[in-house]
Amino acid sequence: MWDNRVNELLNIEYPIIQAPMAGGVTTPELVASVSNAGGLGMVGAGYMEPGQLRSQIREIKMLTSRSYGVNFFIPADFRISKLDFDLAFNRLQSVRDELNIKEEVLVLPDPKEDQVKFAELLDVIIEEKVPVCSFTFGIPSEEVISKLKRKGVILVGTATSVNEAVMNENAGMDIVVGQGSEAGGHRGSFSENGGDHLIGLMSLIPQITDRVSIPVIAAGGIMNGKGFIAALCLGAKGVQMGTAFLTCKESGAHKVYKEAVLQATDSDTVLTRAFSGKWARGIKNQFIIELEESMVPIPDYPIQNKLTSKIRKAAATENDSRFMSLWSGQSPGLAKDQTVKDLIRNIVSEAEEIRASIGGTGIAPGSI
Amino acid sequence: MWDNRVNELLNIEYPIIQAPMAGGVTTPELVASVSNAGGLGMVGAGYMEPGQLRSQIREIKMLTSRSYGVNFFIPADFRISKLDFDLAFNRLQSVRDELNIKEEVLVLPDPKEDQVKFAELLDVIIEEKVPVCSFTFGIPSEEVISKLKRKGVILVGTATSVNEAVMNENAGMDIVVGQGSEAGGHRGSFSENGGDHLIGLMSLIPQITDRVSIPVIAAGGIMNGKGFIAALCLGAKGVQMGTAFLTCKESGAHKVYKEAVLQATDSDTVLTRAFSGKWARGIKNQFIIELEESMVPIPDYPIQNKLTSKIRKAAATENDSRFMSLWSGQSPGLAKDQTVKDLIRNIVSEAEEIRASIGGTGIAPGSI
Repeated sequence: MWDNRVNELLNIEYPIIQAPMAGGVTTPELVASVSNAGGLGMVGAGYMEPGQLRSQIREIKMLTSRSYGVNFFIPADFRISKLDFDLAFNRLQSVRDELNIKEEVLVLPDPKEDQVKFAELLDVIIEEKVPVCSFTFGIPSEEVISKLKRKGVILVGTATSVNEAVMNENAGMDIVVGQGSEAGGHRGSFSENGGDHLIGLMSLIPQITDRVSIPVIAAGGIMNGKGFIAALCLGAKGVQMGTAFLTCKESGAHKVYKEAVLQATDSDTVLTRAFSGKWARGIKNQFIIELEESMVPIPDYPIQNKLTSKIRKAAATENDSRFMSLWSGQSPGLAKDQTVKDLIRNIVSEAEEIRASIGGTGIAPGSI
Repeated sequence: MWDNRVNELLNIEYPIIQAPMAGGVTTPELVASVSNAGGLGMVGAGYMEPGQLRSQIREIKMLTSRSYGVNFFIPADFRISKLDFDLAFNRLQSVRDELNIKEEVLVLPDPKEDQVKFAELLDVIIEEKVPVCSFTFGIPSEEVISKLKRKGVILVGTATSVNEAVMNENAGMDIVVGQGSEAGGHRGSFSENGGDHLIGLMSLIPQITDRVSIPVIAAGGIMNGKGFIAALCLGAKGVQMGTAFLTCKESGAHKVYKEAVLQATDSDTVLTRAFSGKWARGIKNQFIIELEESMVPIPDYPIQNKLTSKIRKAAATENDSRFMSLWSGQSPGLAKDQTVKDLIRNIVSEAEEIRASIGGTGIAPGSI
């Protein structure tokens, strides 16, 4: 069970993947630090423009010669009436007022734009010879998969249920990430509502590994050597960690955001659609409470995401955590302000200690 | 970390506790089989009358000379207006009609009755010299705790958050069960709404063990040796398993109920207040759907529990799973129809295999 399939596929030393957090957290410095420390650094390119992605990749290549990856959101069709759009826009006026954001004229987003941008982003992957590519909110088309595979890109899918993991394997993914209910940020769900079926890793991983033969990576609430080795015991071949890297010195997360995570406890996170229109886990704050109490329905992703974009930016500029998205998994109590190198070193050494102690004494004095 | 504190405290061979499932599942045969196989069998006495508990304990003593335990629900104060009670009663008329249950005259339950019964149940524990006692939905009074401790009863609390675990330790519990969001049946939450803060075991256990010094037992989604050893890696000193024992041959669960669990997948369970008024995880069925769609508010526990009692019984008599409570954790895909002895033997041997393979090869080829 302790095979090195994931290390070989991803060309890394430890099966520790830094979760691709979108929205500025995964700076080239963070990504390269993770790869240099023996894990897999990943760019969260969910909201990026092609030019921006290309320049980040080039920066990463200057900082490391090791393997790294890029994550994309699979674009989805969406629709909204002018009336609902205006309602949702007006709902946020009080927040814009509080943050002194001038009234803006917003045009209804066009689903085709996201499709075009996705194709351009994939061209960047191929042109820049990115070694690993992962996907959230769905599975790319057959055409995209075979094109990337021909170019030797290793493909990683995301699943929040056994069914989604099987779909990923059937589509030809090389690896699948099993995202437990503990995970921070967006639910990767695509075959169902992301707010349903929040399956904890203790249930999710052994049920997925019973059904797929590609390597499974455990994601959600894993912060240290205990979680790492527990995930391997459950049948995972590696782990993906977000919150643990988020508070690292190299992460691009806002100071106020890092501080909020470092102060939070196990009971402080909630699932919300308030910021983006998709279910995501973060620390409960005023923005979430206000939108949950409101009667105005929250539009689907990416509409709500566009509607709240200026608000989140302005709040960050003002160091105002009340209106920022404070994504976090359910283990903020284990988050530390440390370097990436120390985090990975600590994981590996704690895991080695546990291994030694497991190997040393028996589980029980007798046998049945 | 692989100490035997739990085995010593509970006087058992393996730190494997059979979860105290109320409602007829934990027959003396099941409890005694678990204890005879080296684990801790537990009676779910949540709904029992004192006489019924005494006779079950006496049966268990005839079937095993080993340690066992009894679980209680901490009685809570409750209040309901006659109007809300009648609304909730009338809401269920269509279900009673479908099951041919004759209209019954129900009196408003009296919170004092539950308090009196709880005291009588505790007397049974002391008189019958029950070795282990666990509690759900709260922490007993100081008086109760010191009385039981003087009699040498080992006390086990239940926590769904770090905060609740600390409260259990401060109150003098010997052991605390950390119930993850994966767990089937009732949420043990008492300091907050059981539908909030559904913390997965991967997050819950390491955060609890960081904060308390009493041994922590992991509960939720654990079905086999993988889950058992993963829980120990996270810092737990043992596991408590419900669904895994529920489908065992010795369990008193209804045939239709066992079948439903054996057929279910990871995505089939939901949290609901429909059956008892307290949040609990079970397989989604018609009763849950009907009550969720209804506009009539579901009364708190134990009122709703009384209101649905005849319905659940009649449905069981008719083998009609549409109206039965089908409690299950999030790992029904790993449930098996087997004997308790085989279940425990398989857990221990799978765990030993994992230990051996962990001990054998390194986590990673290099080091940093």
